[in-house]
Amino acid sequence: MTAQANANDAITQVADVDAYMTQLGQSARDAATQLRRASTAVKNQALLAVAAHLLAARELIKAANAQDLERGRDKGLDAALLDRLALNDARIDAMIEGLHQVAALPDPVGEIDGLRTLPSGIELGQMRVPLGVIGIIYESRPNVTLDAASLCLKSGNACILRGGSEANASNIALSECITKGLADVGLPAAAVQMVETTDRAAVGRLIAMPEYVDVIIPRGGKSLIERISSDARVPVIKHLDGICHVYVDASADLDKAEAIVINAKTHRYGVCNAMETLLVDEPVAAQLLPRLAAAYLEHGVELRGCERACAIVPQMNAASDEDWATEYLAPILSIRVVDGIEEAMAHIERYSSRHTDAIVTESYTLARRFLAEVDSSSVMVNASTRFADGFEYGLGAEIGISTDRLHVRGPVGLEGLTTRKYVVMGDGQIRQ
Amino acid sequence: MTAQANANDAITQVADVDAYMTQLGQSARDAATQLRRASTAVKNQALLAVAAHLLAARELIKAANAQDLERGRDKGLDAALLDRLALNDARIDAMIEGLHQVAALPDPVGEIDGLRTLPSGIELGQMRVPLGVIGIIYESRPNVTLDAASLCLKSGNACILRGGSEANASNIALSECITKGLADVGLPAAAVQMVETTDRAAVGRLIAMPEYVDVIIPRGGKSLIERISSDARVPVIKHLDGICHVYVDASADLDKAEAIVINAKTHRYGVCNAMETLLVDEPVAAQLLPRLAAAYLEHGVELRGCERACAIVPQMNAASDEDWATEYLAPILSIRVVDGIEEAMAHIERYSSRHTDAIVTESYTLARRFLAEVDSSSVMVNASTRFADGFEYGLGAEIGISTDRLHVRGPVGLEGLTTRKYVVMGDGQIRQ
Repeated sequence: MTAQANANDAITQVADVDAYMTQLGQSARDAATQLRRASTAVKNQALLAVAAHLLAARELIKAANAQDLERGRDKGLDAALLDRLALNDARIDAMIEGLHQVAALPDPVGEIDGLRTLPSGIELGQMRVPLGVIGIIYESRPNVTLDAASLCLKSGNACILRGGSEANASNIALSECITKGLADVGLPAAAVQMVETTDRAAVGRLIAMPEYVDVIIPRGGKSLIERISSDARVPVIKHLDGICHVYVDASADLDKAEAIVINAKTHRYGVCNAMETLLVDEPVAAQLLPRLAAAYLEHGVELRGCERACAIVPQMNAASDEDWATEYLAPILSIRVVDGIEEAMAHIERYSSRHTDAIVTESYTLARRFLAEVDSSSVMVNASTRFADGFEYGLGAEIGISTDRLHVRGPVGLEGLTTRKYVVMGDGQIRQ
Repeated sequence: MTAQANANDAITQVADVDAYMTQLGQSARDAATQLRRASTAVKNQALLAVAAHLLAARELIKAANAQDLERGRDKGLDAALLDRLALNDARIDAMIEGLHQVAALPDPVGEIDGLRTLPSGIELGQMRVPLGVIGIIYESRPNVTLDAASLCLKSGNACILRGGSEANASNIALSECITKGLADVGLPAAAVQMVETTDRAAVGRLIAMPEYVDVIIPRGGKSLIERISSDARVPVIKHLDGICHVYVDASADLDKAEAIVINAKTHRYGVCNAMETLLVDEPVAAQLLPRLAAAYLEHGVELRGCERACAIVPQMNAASDEDWATEYLAPILSIRVVDGIEEAMAHIERYSSRHTDAIVTESYTLARRFLAEVDSSSVMVNASTRFADGFEYGLGAEIGISTDRLHVRGPVGLEGLTTRKYVVMGDGQIRQ
């Protein structure tokens, strides 16, 4: 299928969605069995081969993308959405570079941990192995096609990708490069499959076929993620909200505190690890809040404060109860004055989305308490919440962030796409 | 509530099951917040206090159990079920001893792993923390009440227990000891709650309230587990089947092989890690099968073989295709002659329930291939499948065995009831 034909056939239907998805699932399951056994060298060669094909197909990809953009403009997509859709040279270069980076990462598959001999004489360890088949459902950004495929491939998983229909032609052009790269090294084409029908029933099937798909990773807006999580019959790796807090304790170094809370809010606004609520210990509120307000004003951040905060900085708007529970993804910040760490942690316990929460303090005891007691996927002392990121954590990759408790929590890299099995080496031992 | 009153009120109803379960859930969630912060010492003291109360209430417990047994006999429960229900002195002693053992286990909560400094200067590690609230649904055996409560408590989790209605009086008597033990050390009563209504709607709620319950562990027959897994709206830690294989490769030491395959089948029959299908490499089939058949015959094991197996040992019954997919939990064994490890692994790939599969071999290369390529929760070389067990694995405990891939796989001990969160210690770092 050429990019031209795809653009003309932008709304692709298949006669029988159930049968189509079953066939996709079975192929993925078969491919996963092969990928599980693929050597690191072959997987890396595949990634580099895909990169080479991307390089060679640069103009074709841009042409396909141009068609998506044209359709998008006709449909009235706004500038921000068109920007997310766009694939220019810089972004294609980033995709190629990303493939090289993933190829350079250590392969977690096959690592054996904790090999020890038990009283019975058996030697026991845990071996890291791929999850199997991963379904990734995403909107807008075509680069996710490459991110997802490369991370799944490197971790030995087959994947089924379902991108946004607005990026259909781009995604198909990209997936053709992937298919060629896989073929170059003898890996099955079904290692990476795109759902090529835009029929919504296909998504419903993808998230409800545990015999073929082991886990779903939705990437996109909150309503997409909520819908998928509620209907999925397999585990979902996701985060819903990023309502992150920073609590400035009375013992904090106020210069560090200011740098951290300005960075945590203003470094980037539309990201899940941006601080949305600032908690300030009463003894330092009068000293700190005016400094911060001035700095936030310079950045154009709207402040919404509790009564005591507004009393100290009258220019603040009054915060409603709803503000404490809101992820703004914008230059807006809720501020609350609290009486000590107990109240701060109680507020966090109630309102945090359990993504990332931080304390700024010079108290050894309070730092340890905060780390031990706050129940979030990342808990920090004296660092900006913006560090909650797979690359910053040294994972070398990030397919998403999980705020759930089971399997993987926090930024999800290659290891999050694997599981472990017990391996036992004996010498004829039997149970007595 | 005395044991006497309970027996007279054996079918307990509550007016509004939804409200009742919501209240149970909220109490559990609140208790979990406290338990998360409880010290190892307090948790251990609680376990020992519960043990002391069990000791003191021995006669009361037996009296309550006697009422359950009487009701069971009236209802026509068979001898095996009545035996599972019975609490005699030995079993009460075992429960007390079990509490002491769990108290003696290392506490996984709070352990920090992998603390390292990243290029940005932040120090990053992963801290082990409780899952939160665990729902445990079980049948018949009242000792599960103690197993479950003690493991959840030690790992810092609150739990909601729903036992079989046939053990109602026994479970209530046991839970009273637990409540007293918790009170003795100042831990919340809601750390361990029993669902005291036998209304089935309560189970439906328990498995579908993710705001209060983080994970469900069903213990019982396959139909219970299937029903719960299919209806649960939260993760379920479970195994469905234990269709375990042993493959005897041509290079195997036949004495080791014989000891292993006899043990794997006959050590205990009604357990999930008993071998249900034996695969024998063709070159050693003629030599091995007659030896094995004689030994199995002595144990009274019925053999069902493929054509080639029956040709070697005519006394075998012919196996049907369905036999390869059957977990007998009985003295019956399927036997298949295969041509090499590829065919053995293909058979396992198709029929294994991914619980435990083993190879007997002297080939270094084939041993490593089997360990790497077989996709089960436990994979073994030269050891009986009966070793797939939390105590044999050194976990010190076992709440169940998981054959799913996510979160925990294989025997589930204390660590399986925990998760991890990232902890970051900085010195004022901000994202550039």
